[in-house]
Amino acid sequence: MQNFQQRLIQIIEEKRSWTQRGQVAKYIPELSKANPNILGIAMIDLTGQIFTAGDIDYEFTIQSISKVITLALTLMDSGEEVVFGKIGKEPTGDPFNSIIKLETLRPGRPLNPMINAGAIAVTSLIQGRDVSERFARITNLIQKLTGKEEVRIDHSVYLSEKQTGHRNRALAYFMLNEQVINGDVEDVLDLYFRQCSIMLTVADLARIGTVLANNGRSNETGEVIIPGRIARIIKTFMVTCGMYNSSGEFAIDVGIPAKSGVGGGILAAVPGKWGIGVIGPALDEKGNSIAGSQVLQVLSRELNLSMFTSG
Amino acid sequence: MQNFQQRLIQIIEEKRSWTQRGQVAKYIPELSKANPNILGIAMIDLTGQIFTAGDIDYEFTIQSISKVITLALTLMDSGEEVVFGKIGKEPTGDPFNSIIKLETLRPGRPLNPMINAGAIAVTSLIQGRDVSERFARITNLIQKLTGKEEVRIDHSVYLSEKQTGHRNRALAYFMLNEQVINGDVEDVLDLYFRQCSIMLTVADLARIGTVLANNGRSNETGEVIIPGRIARIIKTFMVTCGMYNSSGEFAIDVGIPAKSGVGGGILAAVPGKWGIGVIGPALDEKGNSIAGSQVLQVLSRELNLSMFTSG
Amino acid sequence: MQNFQQRLIQIIEEKRSWTQRGQVAKYIPELSKANPNILGIAMIDLTGQIFTAGDIDYEFTIQSISKVITLALTLMDSGEEVVFGKIGKEPTGDPFNSIIKLETLRPGRPLNPMINAGAIAVTSLIQGRDVSERFARITNLIQKLTGKEEVRIDHSVYLSEKQTGHRNRALAYFMLNEQVINGDVEDVLDLYFRQCSIMLTVADLARIGTVLANNGRSNETGEVIIPGRIARIIKTFMVTCGMYNSSGEFAIDVGIPAKSGVGGGILAAVPGKWGIGVIGPALDEKGNSIAGSQVLQVLSRELNLSMFTSG
Amino acid sequence: MQNFQQRLIQIIEEKRSWTQRGQVAKYIPELSKANPNILGIAMIDLTGQIFTAGDIDYEFTIQSISKVITLALTLMDSGEEVVFGKIGKEPTGDPFNSIIKLETLRPGRPLNPMINAGAIAVTSLIQGRDVSERFARITNLIQKLTGKEEVRIDHSVYLSEKQTGHRNRALAYFMLNEQVINGDVEDVLDLYFRQCSIMLTVADLARIGTVLANNGRSNETGEVIIPGRIARIIKTFMVTCGMYNSSGEFAIDVGIPAKSGVGGGILAAVPGKWGIGVIGPALDEKGNSIAGSQVLQVLSRELNLSMFTSG
Repeated sequence: MQNFQQRLIQIIEEKRSWTQRGQVAKYIPELSKANPNILGIAMIDLTGQIFTAGDIDYEFTIQSISKVITLALTLMDSGEEVVFGKIGKEPTGDPFNSIIKLETLRPGRPLNPMINAGAIAVTSLIQGRDVSERFARITNLIQKLTGKEEVRIDHSVYLSEKQTGHRNRALAYFMLNEQVINGDVEDVLDLYFRQCSIMLTVADLARIGTVLANNGRSNETGEVIIPGRIARIIKTFMVTCGMYNSSGEFAIDVGIPAKSGVGGGILAAVPGKWGIGVIGPALDEKGNSIAGSQVLQVLSRELNLSMFTSG
Repeated sequence: MQNFQQRLIQIIEEKRSWTQRGQVAKYIPELSKANPNILGIAMIDLTGQIFTAGDIDYEFTIQSISKVITLALTLMDSGEEVVFGKIGKEPTGDPFNSIIKLETLRPGRPLNPMINAGAIAVTSLIQGRDVSERFARITNLIQKLTGKEEVRIDHSVYLSEKQTGHRNRALAYFMLNEQVINGDVEDVLDLYFRQCSIMLTVADLARIGTVLANNGRSNETGEVIIPGRIARIIKTFMVTCGMYNSSGEFAIDVGIPAKSGVGGGILAAVPGKWGIGVIGPALDEKGNSIAGSQVLQVLSRELNLSMFTSG
Repeated sequence: MQNFQQRLIQIIEEKRSWTQRGQVAKYIPELSKANPNILGIAMIDLTGQIFTAGDIDYEFTIQSISKVITLALTLMDSGEEVVFGKIGKEPTGDPFNSIIKLETLRPGRPLNPMINAGAIAVTSLIQGRDVSERFARITNLIQKLTGKEEVRIDHSVYLSEKQTGHRNRALAYFMLNEQVINGDVEDVLDLYFRQCSIMLTVADLARIGTVLANNGRSNETGEVIIPGRIARIIKTFMVTCGMYNSSGEFAIDVGIPAKSGVGGGILAAVPGKWGIGVIGPALDEKGNSIAGSQVLQVLSRELNLSMFTSG
Repeated sequence: MQNFQQRLIQIIEEKRSWTQRGQVAKYIPELSKANPNILGIAMIDLTGQIFTAGDIDYEFTIQSISKVITLALTLMDSGEEVVFGKIGKEPTGDPFNSIIKLETLRPGRPLNPMINAGAIAVTSLIQGRDVSERFARITNLIQKLTGKEEVRIDHSVYLSEKQTGHRNRALAYFMLNEQVINGDVEDVLDLYFRQCSIMLTVADLARIGTVLANNGRSNETGEVIIPGRIARIIKTFMVTCGMYNSSGEFAIDVGIPAKSGVGGGILAAVPGKWGIGVIGPALDEKGNSIAGSQVLQVLSRELNLSMFTSG
């Protein structure tokens, strides 16, 4: 296994040059300040063994990776019937922030919980007296998943998104009109922007990945953090819709359940085998970490990780 | 295993009542003559053991299931670069016969090879001097996959589709205009309508499934019929786009690579385990065999077949 | 002319039965309380002679008719370059509240000032220190156009729209994101909902119509209330986009510049001849007064009012 | 009036430099060979007086201007009920060759007869035993309208369009599928491509314009060539949809019923006053003669021709 640790370092160094082919996210002023050359990975197997390489101490905002966490939380809170009564299960060929299908489909439900409309609808279902309590429930789940004592947000990113996230406001008000979401839209968006601004490291993501890979159980304590069926649902969405508009290509080339965020993070879970966290803020055109995707492709090939290969 | 055979018969009889909740396809006059009460299944494991139940002798036109065969053939003929230079890899939330994205996306390529536009583009790439030779290459591959000595088409269905398939003509001419396809459009469509009219039984589909489940190798002879990488690509498309507009839901509820056709057939391949063929001409609203989907859901649960469950 | 007055009464009575074929607007709770049987008209020629028939004392909220007023005001305030730098001049085949083209067209500008998106963008350009002052500028223009001493709004309709107008909020935030509008969106919407809730009678609308028919001049005082070029622009939009999604049909069947509102009002201006106001809260499927449209069609035929007939 | 003749020559020379800001149509190879510097006009008033300037002998293919002729013919053949049972009356914000609304609107009818889909549907309604007889009926109407003894087509343009017009084929087959059109699609398209390839001069267009301006009557013989109501309908469509995607802007800036073609021609009809023909093959981005539009704008202003100005 020392060999693998060395190989991992080698892969990161080989693929670091890919960071120059991408660009950091620009639509939020704060995100554009990220260092594009960063690249790092953590992998944890179900025995708890950890392998890391590259910029593993870098904390980044998880952005869309939070969609996975809140989906798990609302499914545990309210059950599939409620959640999928509001939000569909189908992949879409439209961009992640598209509003078109809310108008063209009847009823005007978001197609799935991994696009912004669907994720905002998911967030609107999180239970709690107020935004603080609801946010505490999200961070509490992340603490359980990662073992972190404290989960913090990047306040400047949060404020930046809150001030400029008018496309998300448009989605939310459209869904309010369609009665997909109820209640105070600004509260829902406030919670959504907070969850996107949560800061984690690649090791944290890898720990979340191990729980998903292990059918929702902690591989350390054996505790069921997420019920098995919900862990399965989430991995399914990660395959069909987790990598924005290149989910289909990623499924072919890599074949691992994964969810990316525009902060450059990728959370991956190889069923029964690995939890993986990757960071690389330079993004490809679709919004996925460009070097991070390359690293996962190499790992999938070398370790034979694709779900679509037999045995 | 005799127990399993009995259980399979039981499942078919339990789920046969579901056939009354669906309707046979109507858009082609010939298809509307099918018996809606039919339900049958064949399952073959990688040791060659076969289990069957229900209407297993019924021959039906494979319709969209042929998309899987022609994709394999063109990938073997021309390679990924050529095929995916013309056709995308992404799932779509639009109906299988939609033309909209050909106009809105630049370049106007079909999103994936499982929607009609993409499948017609795939068919246009099949090599051969003329339609007869190209069709012979399709049936030849099916013969290798199934072990059948002869592959026949349903002539009345073929003629019916050829005469009324103007929506597919519109897709083909639009793609000709966009230079996604070249050559004689009527020839391409003739070949496409022929491939859709190929008649198979559930055992034939199950045999095709075993090859896909076995990374492209015959489980009898060990011969590589489809290269492993191509078998993997096809299984990936079956998961992300194989069940029309309920592919996402099917992935969650069943979690098996599968491709359905409006004739009521479903081809499924459980990696490393099973090839499965199902027939049930009564369809749900999305165009999938309504009772057939139920049968697969029960099997997935009882045999723990979902790819998204760990170990 | 006494004959015409009698004929006008006759037309109203003949067409009143059409009110039963339509329905009052339901999307705002308050509007649904309107009496669907109401039908009334006022016509004023450029000498000031007035003819009326039916329910002429009924006050109704002008709704989308206000789009004509605010367009005139912003064109006077800011000029064509500014206004049409934000809002297009082209008719659209999409519904009046559609958001799709804001996403599909680059830049994401509303197609014209008669659809909701365009009208909200127009309202965002009205100058004034705060909402009150801006609204006073709208009512001031209406006072000049109608000679009314006071212009009031229906507070319950205003509050109802403000509370439930989330589709308009979605349009506004989408345009804020596209930088079509700037400033405080809730202020813009507050002003928009107020302008829609202004209450007028058919005689008021007819007076506004005479000014438009008279190239922007008061036919009483000769004062230029709206510059001639702006009056012309407004009449053009009334023809190409004034009657929601049946503007084209109305242009063929009636051929008079007209703007309708979901309160049941229609403002019409026959160039050089007539100002007309009609009320009939029962609407057709497109949102236009069903009996009111019939009345205008009869008048156009009998008085030869279509602009598209020669001499 | 000699002054006006001189002024017209002056206008043409002043605006000829605009031809350099546009480009000749490229989508048909043959059209791209046109001389971009050409600019010419003919104007005929209802007394028969003719004024001309610039390249008045140049023969050009009328392209979309033919849509006006065939609409008149089918309305005379089959009546409004039949024609508008197949084709709508509403302007659209979509491009002239768009197929999207055929899929999104139910029933899938073209929005109006001035976009390609609508015009092809109109052509499918032209009566006659075969394509030759139907085409003879089109040219016969043009002979009546223009007084020409013979109407010819540009064979190389016709063949070029027939060979490359696959987008129009897609529209036609889609409409065949929707039962908007019936019969042999290739025959319909053959007729459509022929009508587009008819060659006329500006004086011919001006003569057609006088008939429309004169409510369908010949201003020479007084004969009713097109019934008054149909002439009115056509002028209405020319205003709402005649200038592709800048019809709305043209209505504001010029205010004259007009129909353009990608050959560079514009047919205009000022009700009660003028028939006008313009040629200028250099097109703006929307497909209208760039210098020709400028010439009409100057004339509208100087002669006060806008329909939207009062008296």
